[in-house]
Amino acid sequence: MPITAREWHLAARPHGEPTPDDFRLVEVEHPDPAEGQVVVRMVAMSVDPYMRGRMRLGPSYAAPWEVGEVMKGGAVGRVVESRSPDVPEGALVLTDAAWRDVAVLDARAVRQLPATEDLPLTYSLGVLGMPGLTAWAGLFRVAAFREGDAVFVSGAAGAVGSAVGQFARLRGASAVVGSAGSPDKVAWLREIGFTAAFDYHDGRVKDLLAQAAPDGVDVYFDNVGGEHLDAALGALHVHGRVAICGAISGYNATESVPGPKNFSSLMIAKRLAVTGLLVGDHTDLHGEFTETVSGWIRSGQLAVRETVYEGLENAVPAFLDLLKGANTGKMVVRLAPDPD
Amino acid sequence: MPITAREWHLAARPHGEPTPDDFRLVEVEHPDPAEGQVVVRMVAMSVDPYMRGRMRLGPSYAAPWEVGEVMKGGAVGRVVESRSPDVPEGALVLTDAAWRDVAVLDARAVRQLPATEDLPLTYSLGVLGMPGLTAWAGLFRVAAFREGDAVFVSGAAGAVGSAVGQFARLRGASAVVGSAGSPDKVAWLREIGFTAAFDYHDGRVKDLLAQAAPDGVDVYFDNVGGEHLDAALGALHVHGRVAICGAISGYNATESVPGPKNFSSLMIAKRLAVTGLLVGDHTDLHGEFTETVSGWIRSGQLAVRETVYEGLENAVPAFLDLLKGANTGKMVVRLAPDPD
Repeated sequence: MPITAREWHLAARPHGEPTPDDFRLVEVEHPDPAEGQVVVRMVAMSVDPYMRGRMRLGPSYAAPWEVGEVMKGGAVGRVVESRSPDVPEGALVLTDAAWRDVAVLDARAVRQLPATEDLPLTYSLGVLGMPGLTAWAGLFRVAAFREGDAVFVSGAAGAVGSAVGQFARLRGASAVVGSAGSPDKVAWLREIGFTAAFDYHDGRVKDLLAQAAPDGVDVYFDNVGGEHLDAALGALHVHGRVAICGAISGYNATESVPGPKNFSSLMIAKRLAVTGLLVGDHTDLHGEFTETVSGWIRSGQLAVRETVYEGLENAVPAFLDLLKGANTGKMVVRLAPDPD
Repeated sequence: MPITAREWHLAARPHGEPTPDDFRLVEVEHPDPAEGQVVVRMVAMSVDPYMRGRMRLGPSYAAPWEVGEVMKGGAVGRVVESRSPDVPEGALVLTDAAWRDVAVLDARAVRQLPATEDLPLTYSLGVLGMPGLTAWAGLFRVAAFREGDAVFVSGAAGAVGSAVGQFARLRGASAVVGSAGSPDKVAWLREIGFTAAFDYHDGRVKDLLAQAAPDGVDVYFDNVGGEHLDAALGALHVHGRVAICGAISGYNATESVPGPKNFSSLMIAKRLAVTGLLVGDHTDLHGEFTETVSGWIRSGQLAVRETVYEGLENAVPAFLDLLKGANTGKMVVRLAPDPD
């Protein structure tokens, strides 16, 4: 019996800010799974800022989505039919195969999730998944965080940012400063242990950062780019380190984005080290990351928040709202209740 | 008997391009040396691009020169009178005490030069001195050069750039590409073993670099900034590395200098590592650097060129011409004949 799936296709490459017209929800019939395949019914799918890059051609963080084809992205689901000895029916799996409600996939294209019965399945898309590992690798490897460092993270109330700030605190940062886009988010950052936090709408980032971190910082974890990066380069100490993880302030730009001002002279005078970060380079850290972070969650030392939209039809609103900063913590689209 | 010295003082902080009026040559009488002091008669002094930074207040590569005071900079000289048991009369020394013809100095402020009778004394200001060590540390440590890397260096016919390119060649670079500011310099770069070289006046740096390095590069050693840095970020491979050593294209800027375009997205998509370089962080490399490089010079594997201006009164023209790129190799001002 053929399998009916609902899928989001890329309808058009946006110019500037994406709109709902750039996406199309279509119904597709798939044949029954072949030998070695499984049918996965998705429980939740991820929308992430980096996906804005997959909508365009040119330098991006992952292969661009093709116009007229299904978009790809992280999701967790349950195997409802299996023709592979490796992945049993009923298994909970992580895939890169949403945005859709059900998919017929090669068994090799899914990863079985370990039993974490006490933790929500969706954490595998956030704090225990790609965003969490991004924070881990960016802070500890790329930015070479050391105990006693003062850390500034932008987009601090997002999935990656909130992990970065808390990881830094738990590993002995002397200060953790975060920027976010609303008073609620700022309040939440203070709640979860940030030393200082500010709403970047409240003034020039440079001034707000100087107020929040009057003694400067050693590490900057950048999710935002633009004015935030400018301000951070100014606030960094000699031998400061920057992980460039994202630049959401420029994702909808239609012209080339201006770079940080006085870049060369700041880089030299302070011998800064600025490094680009993609999580795919750092999967070797997955073991230590998972063990440590799941421990922190279980012990209550690490706060986790999610913003959940319900239903596949709301995947596009979730994504567009994410780009506008509507989420606190990980933005997730729930497609089915958590399995028992 | 008091010692009469001629000294260059900073007369004014320039706005934009420095002019001769920003400097003043004055005659000063110094008292006889006190206990622990030496009198050094300079043989040659260095003018370097970084000195433009010492003319201004604010983020710089070294302490700013004070208006109305003598300027400082590397020089080699001979001790003509000594009241220190550590530094005998007649010793050849390196000091940071030019721009002047004679200076009364603490013995601790001079470094005795090893006997290198076969090599010109002025090499201690260039290929065997600060610029050479800058090239060494920037290429091998900061940019983490590895055998087989393709290297691009801007300002390649300068003291630092010509060392970088040749060091890379001698350590097994797959390609060494240089940019310079005149056909003569480009011809010289080809002569001394650069795989490809171009005159940046001949078109857009981006296009010239694409032609010279069609397969891209692994390492960029930046002496120029601006359009060169933009072009290099575009040409770098995934995991490419950049040492930011200088930014001569922006040294006379009167407003904030725009940064590299699309910086964040390039940094992330290619996971580039960009690091600022100041030679003072890397003095621990001095031993291996001196030994290897003096060996390369003696064996004829490393070409050295100097541009020499004669006389203290020509120090300012030398410096101003340096900023315009009039030199090939190290720019030196000779104040006296080499001692026997």
